[in-house]
Amino acid sequence: MGIKMKQYDIAIIGAGPAGLTAALYSARNGLSVGVISKDIGGTVNSVLRIENWPGFSGSGPELIKKFYEQVKGYKIDFILEEVASIEHKDNKGKNKEFIVKTKQQEIKCKSVILATGAEKKKLKIPGEAEFLGRGVSYCATCDSFFFKNKDVAIISESDCTATSALVLSDIAKKVYLIYRGEKLKCEDVNQEKLKEKKNVKIFYNTTPIEITGKNKVEELKIFCKGKRDVLKVDGVFIEIGSAPLAEFTKNLGLKMDNEKFIRVNEDMKTSVEGVYAAGDVTHTKLKQVVVAASQGAIAANSAYNWLNK
Amino acid sequence: MGIKMKQYDIAIIGAGPAGLTAALYSARNGLSVGVISKDIGGTVNSVLRIENWPGFSGSGPELIKKFYEQVKGYKIDFILEEVASIEHKDNKGKNKEFIVKTKQQEIKCKSVILATGAEKKKLKIPGEAEFLGRGVSYCATCDSFFFKNKDVAIISESDCTATSALVLSDIAKKVYLIYRGEKLKCEDVNQEKLKEKKNVKIFYNTTPIEITGKNKVEELKIFCKGKRDVLKVDGVFIEIGSAPLAEFTKNLGLKMDNEKFIRVNEDMKTSVEGVYAAGDVTHTKLKQVVVAASQGAIAANSAYNWLNK
Repeated sequence: MGIKMKQYDIAIIGAGPAGLTAALYSARNGLSVGVISKDIGGTVNSVLRIENWPGFSGSGPELIKKFYEQVKGYKIDFILEEVASIEHKDNKGKNKEFIVKTKQQEIKCKSVILATGAEKKKLKIPGEAEFLGRGVSYCATCDSFFFKNKDVAIISESDCTATSALVLSDIAKKVYLIYRGEKLKCEDVNQEKLKEKKNVKIFYNTTPIEITGKNKVEELKIFCKGKRDVLKVDGVFIEIGSAPLAEFTKNLGLKMDNEKFIRVNEDMKTSVEGVYAAGDVTHTKLKQVVVAASQGAIAANSAYNWLNK
Repeated sequence: MGIKMKQYDIAIIGAGPAGLTAALYSARNGLSVGVISKDIGGTVNSVLRIENWPGFSGSGPELIKKFYEQVKGYKIDFILEEVASIEHKDNKGKNKEFIVKTKQQEIKCKSVILATGAEKKKLKIPGEAEFLGRGVSYCATCDSFFFKNKDVAIISESDCTATSALVLSDIAKKVYLIYRGEKLKCEDVNQEKLKEKKNVKIFYNTTPIEITGKNKVEELKIFCKGKRDVLKVDGVFIEIGSAPLAEFTKNLGLKMDNEKFIRVNEDMKTSVEGVYAAGDVTHTKLKQVVVAASQGAIAANSAYNWLNK
């Protein structure tokens, strides 16, 4: 057939902070480990500056390099291909077997950790891609501190942006909250709080049009109630949600939340025996590198205990 | 009175990985932060080698130094004193106020993160303290990998040691499981699994007497069914439980588990409004630096959201 068949105790899908930490813990537990991922690092590679991974200050790629160099010291196979599907051979019996398929290969394993992360939704306006990391950010919790006493805009679509706007208002000089709808759909208490903040201005019925600047963000062009306007800002936070990268798991029938994030319990166990998930692909709230790494460790530990049953 | 009164948005008790990460996230959220702890680092300072903090390989004190140097860059007060008690001024009203007392000071704050960790229980036999980090370890999950193809003993008292013995049996050449009682109190499935392992030998009715060696562990002296014996080993794992350092919280009336670890939900919230806990002091299972740090970040985020309510 020309298709090679590899076999591992555990297959880890994804090689960001969650996947690499899961690989580290699994290898240290003496398991045979295959990491299958289209790249090493995932979305962290696009982060220009990370200052909230404890004990580190540098770029996303620099952090990932440290993670990768550490795990390379272990007997771990890296298969740099995109996963097309996973099938569960036997759900009820004692026989633990999953088949992970890429275009080129079929990989047999006894347990799986899903750590494929999520993709930030894009505005798809001019300047957005160009100024990524030079004023454009997708995460207020991660990056607000870089805008101390500066002016920023935050583009909102969902409930949780109110919290991000509050975070920003405590740090930045001025916060413009740009909102397409008539009324914010956030908890009343947050809405009240936002209105009280003297440095927050909310724009309803407003669409962001373009982000401009020389080397970094300088202006956000908006279309507000039928009129063009320009806001002078140092940063634009785009928080219009993210989409989990979990399409390939559909044959497993995992329980997911409304937005298709994978549901896990506190041991990072999914609804399917032998399948664990960690990092941004899960339903857990705080999407941070340190949380993803911790979940990778917990998932690896849980998988190991399950394999020993 | 001679007692100084300091005041913060948030007081963090403990300055190990959980406490320092909570301080980092709280300061980045723009809160005023006081960290109150008898030392910087806690139990991690006694770890001679850490290889499972992602992207790092070195000693416990080296890792803590990285953490501390990072947080020093923020406006965080460090009060290096032991906490004697915490009192909650008003549990029901809108007024958020706790008083943290040390011998020297009273510190007022609106919310608290408890991150005081736990202390490993000691055997209290000759050689135990002397060979710490030179063959003596209190954590198989952390250190088993350093004993690849070596002979080790594990001193057990509770259920979970069976799992640790299994971890060791996959890595080490020979594992001696030393047990004081007649019968292991572990899940049947683990007991069966242990019996199947050809490289595990279980000693019932056995007491460890002394650990000896020149520069590192070489022998474990035991008293087995009325007779002295000597086991040649490279490592001695002492897993007889640990005790959370949470006595000082008793005025708060926090919910705890049977062993007095603090109960938290997935947001690291305790049973008392405004009080969060993170790291080894909590009831969560996997006691690892990366898990503690993640819990510190989550606790800080939850406290921030609560303060903004």
